[in-house]
Amino acid sequence: MHSLRSPALRPLPLSPASNPSRPLRFRLFALSLPLFPSSWRSPSERLARPAAGPRFRVVRSCGSVTAKPSSEIGRRGGGRPEPDEKLRALRELFTRPGIGIDAYIVPSQDAHQSEFIAECYTRRAYISGFTGSAGTAVVTKDKAALWTDGRYFLQAENQLNSSWILMRAGNLGVPTTSEWLNDVLAPGCRIGIDPFLFSSDAAEELKEAIAKKNHELVLLYNINLVDEVWKERPKPPNKPVRIHDLKFAGLDVASKLSFLRAEFVDAGASAIIISMLDEVAWLLNLRGNDVPNSPVVYAYLLVKTETAELFVDSSKITPEVMDHLKNAGVELRPYDKILSEIENLAKQGRNLWLDTSSVNAAIVNTYKSACDKYLNKKNKARVHDYNGRSAMPSGVYRASPISLAKAVKNDAELQGMRNSHLRDAAALAHFWVWLEEEINRGAKLTEVEVADKLLEFRSKQDGFIDTSFDTISASGANGAVIHYKPEPGSCSVLDVEKLFLLDSGAQYVDGTTDITRTVHFGEPTPRQKECFTRVLQGHIALDQAVFPENTPGFVLDAFARSSLWKIGLDYRHGTFHSLAAWLFKIPMRIHSSAASFSFLVIGTGHGVGAALNVHEGPQSISFRYGNLTSLQKGMVVSNEPGYHEDHAFGIRIENLLSVVEMNTPYHFEGVGYLGFEKLTFVPIQTKMVDSALLSSAEIDWLNDYHAQVWEKVSPLLDGSARQWLWDNTRPLPIE
Amino acid sequence: MHSLRSPALRPLPLSPASNPSRPLRFRLFALSLPLFPSSWRSPSERLARPAAGPRFRVVRSCGSVTAKPSSEIGRRGGGRPEPDEKLRALRELFTRPGIGIDAYIVPSQDAHQSEFIAECYTRRAYISGFTGSAGTAVVTKDKAALWTDGRYFLQAENQLNSSWILMRAGNLGVPTTSEWLNDVLAPGCRIGIDPFLFSSDAAEELKEAIAKKNHELVLLYNINLVDEVWKERPKPPNKPVRIHDLKFAGLDVASKLSFLRAEFVDAGASAIIISMLDEVAWLLNLRGNDVPNSPVVYAYLLVKTETAELFVDSSKITPEVMDHLKNAGVELRPYDKILSEIENLAKQGRNLWLDTSSVNAAIVNTYKSACDKYLNKKNKARVHDYNGRSAMPSGVYRASPISLAKAVKNDAELQGMRNSHLRDAAALAHFWVWLEEEINRGAKLTEVEVADKLLEFRSKQDGFIDTSFDTISASGANGAVIHYKPEPGSCSVLDVEKLFLLDSGAQYVDGTTDITRTVHFGEPTPRQKECFTRVLQGHIALDQAVFPENTPGFVLDAFARSSLWKIGLDYRHGTFHSLAAWLFKIPMRIHSSAASFSFLVIGTGHGVGAALNVHEGPQSISFRYGNLTSLQKGMVVSNEPGYHEDHAFGIRIENLLSVVEMNTPYHFEGVGYLGFEKLTFVPIQTKMVDSALLSSAEIDWLNDYHAQVWEKVSPLLDGSARQWLWDNTRPLPIE
Repeated sequence: MHSLRSPALRPLPLSPASNPSRPLRFRLFALSLPLFPSSWRSPSERLARPAAGPRFRVVRSCGSVTAKPSSEIGRRGGGRPEPDEKLRALRELFTRPGIGIDAYIVPSQDAHQSEFIAECYTRRAYISGFTGSAGTAVVTKDKAALWTDGRYFLQAENQLNSSWILMRAGNLGVPTTSEWLNDVLAPGCRIGIDPFLFSSDAAEELKEAIAKKNHELVLLYNINLVDEVWKERPKPPNKPVRIHDLKFAGLDVASKLSFLRAEFVDAGASAIIISMLDEVAWLLNLRGNDVPNSPVVYAYLLVKTETAELFVDSSKITPEVMDHLKNAGVELRPYDKILSEIENLAKQGRNLWLDTSSVNAAIVNTYKSACDKYLNKKNKARVHDYNGRSAMPSGVYRASPISLAKAVKNDAELQGMRNSHLRDAAALAHFWVWLEEEINRGAKLTEVEVADKLLEFRSKQDGFIDTSFDTISASGANGAVIHYKPEPGSCSVLDVEKLFLLDSGAQYVDGTTDITRTVHFGEPTPRQKECFTRVLQGHIALDQAVFPENTPGFVLDAFARSSLWKIGLDYRHGTFHSLAAWLFKIPMRIHSSAASFSFLVIGTGHGVGAALNVHEGPQSISFRYGNLTSLQKGMVVSNEPGYHEDHAFGIRIENLLSVVEMNTPYHFEGVGYLGFEKLTFVPIQTKMVDSALLSSAEIDWLNDYHAQVWEKVSPLLDGSARQWLWDNTRPLPIE
Repeated sequence: MHSLRSPALRPLPLSPASNPSRPLRFRLFALSLPLFPSSWRSPSERLARPAAGPRFRVVRSCGSVTAKPSSEIGRRGGGRPEPDEKLRALRELFTRPGIGIDAYIVPSQDAHQSEFIAECYTRRAYISGFTGSAGTAVVTKDKAALWTDGRYFLQAENQLNSSWILMRAGNLGVPTTSEWLNDVLAPGCRIGIDPFLFSSDAAEELKEAIAKKNHELVLLYNINLVDEVWKERPKPPNKPVRIHDLKFAGLDVASKLSFLRAEFVDAGASAIIISMLDEVAWLLNLRGNDVPNSPVVYAYLLVKTETAELFVDSSKITPEVMDHLKNAGVELRPYDKILSEIENLAKQGRNLWLDTSSVNAAIVNTYKSACDKYLNKKNKARVHDYNGRSAMPSGVYRASPISLAKAVKNDAELQGMRNSHLRDAAALAHFWVWLEEEINRGAKLTEVEVADKLLEFRSKQDGFIDTSFDTISASGANGAVIHYKPEPGSCSVLDVEKLFLLDSGAQYVDGTTDITRTVHFGEPTPRQKECFTRVLQGHIALDQAVFPENTPGFVLDAFARSSLWKIGLDYRHGTFHSLAAWLFKIPMRIHSSAASFSFLVIGTGHGVGAALNVHEGPQSISFRYGNLTSLQKGMVVSNEPGYHEDHAFGIRIENLLSVVEMNTPYHFEGVGYLGFEKLTFVPIQTKMVDSALLSSAEIDWLNDYHAQVWEKVSPLLDGSARQWLWDNTRPLPIE
């Protein structure tokens, strides 16, 4: 599944000296709040803007730009905003004693920078009415604006009422949230946020940006204003946590904690706070049910040199899980006691390891303040640490070491991935034979009905738990919409005349899947076949790549595009107009390590967790060469080149791959070579292939792949599904 | 020709805000002086080093490292250094009034950061006796050390006397020049340099590095200590300058100056100093004879808003050239008056555009001091500029705009490149037929004799001027030595049993060539054929690449390596042990623009000038992805993948290519697509090709290339050379 996750690109601290393993550092910007900071705009864009006046209005007046407030487009009647009860109630809180703010920012995030979040935390959706996955709402005393990106412009137009201004992030001249606040507020205002919902880096950047107009960033620790006005707010999730069996995890919790504590020495840390939910789950061999698609539980994990504490709602902890944790020396703490324990760490003189790109501002600032407090109190004298040694607590600011450890799968995890992929392939065989029969008999199936049926087939498989993301079931032109999500009532009906793109995945007890196939039920056009074949050539080129150790994923990206480039085609997703804009204007995380999905996977491949999040870091395969993480043996990546033609059709062919050592005949300069092992075994529709375009090696690849699909998946099938698999794994006819 | 040019990698100022066209900036380090700064070493290397004591000695004692002083290896007798008269005389100057230094650094550079320099400026070679192209000599009152890189270790061992310590730059534990100075000198010493021989950036970095031990960097403007002791120092070159005909240049000087002055507006500059010799030559349509291989003249060009001044030895200026310059509004000034005019600029209130990566420290510091002087004098009041307007002179620090303008060739330049390449190909046909006949009749030819004969054939071609670099004529294992330079007396004899690698090029009046072919006169081994064929596959893949506009060269680099990677082979050159070292530890210039050769072309391709320097920037094709310069229509690049097996053989296949627009059937998102046109038309020895490894498309490429070679070059030939061309352009036999 392609993932365009704008809200979570956050800055790394720029301190080359502090971490010698990162010799090259970029200046990084937050994508979380100011979706597209002004610094990304070209000089001419900036020159075009007069010095005063609200920027988005000025640009509008030049007529070249679509950044009009939504209230002015597609609205019946006049300029008067509709009365908005939620906004009124929210603004009433602005003046409450102890609050006293002039604006409030409501991001999409939960406190853990999660990709999928529990309903009770969907505050931005509640307050604005806009339910898309990415966006930021900003409410002043008399204005309300919502930023989202190109995927969601139409949806936001439909969902926002006239009290809201739609900010089309990425369009020319559209200000960032902080630019807008600096424009619409008189200097010296107080801008409030919930510090749990911002990574520390994002909050710091925001603070700096609004300081230009002398605005103050007010961290409201004890109250979330949206929660306050949210009538019938859903309860926090409370389903029980389960143990991720050692036979799937491969490594017990004690060993993982040992590994983590061994990292303390080099870092000079005596404690670390883990806040990414998949990192907590991986480290403790636990799985939860708190959010859709990802098997995680809301929790913080605090690992100290000698103990570990899990901050979690204890009602989710079964006696069995309690034993499991106790065996690993992990104690329970209430979820909402995290800040007081963080403060204690400073009191104990502990150096806390903080990945400020993922840990929220509430935690980081609490720790910093506590350090200051204990230093000041003792007049900069050293306090005593937990061992009675003198110590001066200070933060250790570096990337979480869990990200890479989690990305490099062990044998048990890889075996679980292989096994779950075969069961997933069996489910898909049942699904495809059902779908083809339905289409052939003339059934009018909607995209949603098809997705639901796929879920039904998957749920019959052993160990099935959930989808791993919302199924992209897209007929015809919908296939060109990245992250298309069919909705009942509005979605299309599958058409024998059109291409059908299906990007879906599942969570199993032993693994996570993510697969895309594109098929035609009738007769594809020569152009569709040409595009499909070139996408397939890119898929094959990447699949077959052999490369030296220490190669970052972006080095391989061109392999997947080369055959499309030959005819002037390419794939990329988003709102930018040129590759140049991508290459030069969009900063990116390097050594992205903490937030699994917190880099833009706008390219060819993303990492995938083992029975965990379907998008994880730190590796990726993308033409954006900011991610220097090398591909390493045991990592899992998706291989998903595509071609998307607006208003026409979309093509994507996606398998998951694991990185394996290659037994090359030579090892130049002693370097090891890596390649890929396929995890996904589902037929690729040969009807779509123009075999005249393929080399004999490419034809061999396809025939060999289908032979493997038959060999591996047929034992799991019988009847019509088995027959379907047989029919769809035959070699290409020799021409 | 591959170019490993370590001495000139210099830092760019780190000021993202100052130039919005460069959104991403790396922290860059100087390679010029500290060949490999300590920051490139891994943490473990640094940990391994005790806190005190001379580093290189300490590391030596751990036994794992080869960085022993040359005086200790391969020397007869004992530790006593030989008396060195040059060093003695140099050190005598240290205490002269007005000098007063404790150490003196002698780099390889001239005042213009040239790749090839006039003999009178080869001060480092004179003082040390080491004649290799790259190196830095440092002399203290009691020690003398010479740094060079892996290419030259053996040569330096042979050439240095026992007064010198050889520093094997790039080897584990070898200190940089400044680290060494900080170790061997007592704190608070004065370290002298000739500020003309250091780029401003390099001098700044040096200053900072030695400040750690409170050393002071002393800029000796008025004396070069080596010149002072150099008996019979060669005279500066004084051959006449010639006009580069407009029919080859394509654009007259006035137009080029207009373009340059138009750039002033955006930069806020009212003058620019051009110090790179090829930039001066390109801008003024002049060519010189001052250095080997590059047709340039020693000069600075100062372009102001209304006038331009060429600082040059006027004896080189013929009346014809004088007229040419006058017509373009360019006045002559004595070469050695540059600093006084620079000072005048500040007095006139001019903002001077300075590319501190290439302009020397003497010029930059003179301008800065003058600005300070005029600001101080007037108590920070504004002085008056040349138009009578008030002004406050200040430097404009950004890359020279000439680099890119020069790299993007116009039609006339491209036509000159095409024509000169055909004549070069004709010379090569004569050469190869001669060589094969000689070998067949059993002649024992040395590598030098062969190179000389090649020069003879080339010199018979119309418009021939010079070689474009020292010919690499390398038999057998010598082919594995990057930048092998055969020397009379010591070089090898060509052998019918061995591979022969010939990397050579020429300067013609209308263009510059650079070609490598690898041949076998007898029967190559299957392994040699396999390696050759995979190198050829890489060459073909890059040659055939189609890619979107705004693609930096490094994106294409993997195409050239992919076929070698499949069997665990690769190519790279230098002293590093792993790709990781390259990727992560070696910083590089971005938007390299000023110093034509001042980036490491350790990869697949470098830029080539049109009747100018054989190595130029800013583009390159390399796996080192720091160079973000995109390939642009009209640029010329080399395509030279290779494989070099130490002590066995070397393979390289090199053509020059020009970047052209591709007429792709589609233009996704309106983006243009680019590809390559071949400039080089010389047969590739099919005897070396294992055609079973080639795809049918690759076989077609080779046959088509040879058909083009015959078509384009045969009209220039007759007799045996024409027959040789016919024989060597036949299609591969169908198997």
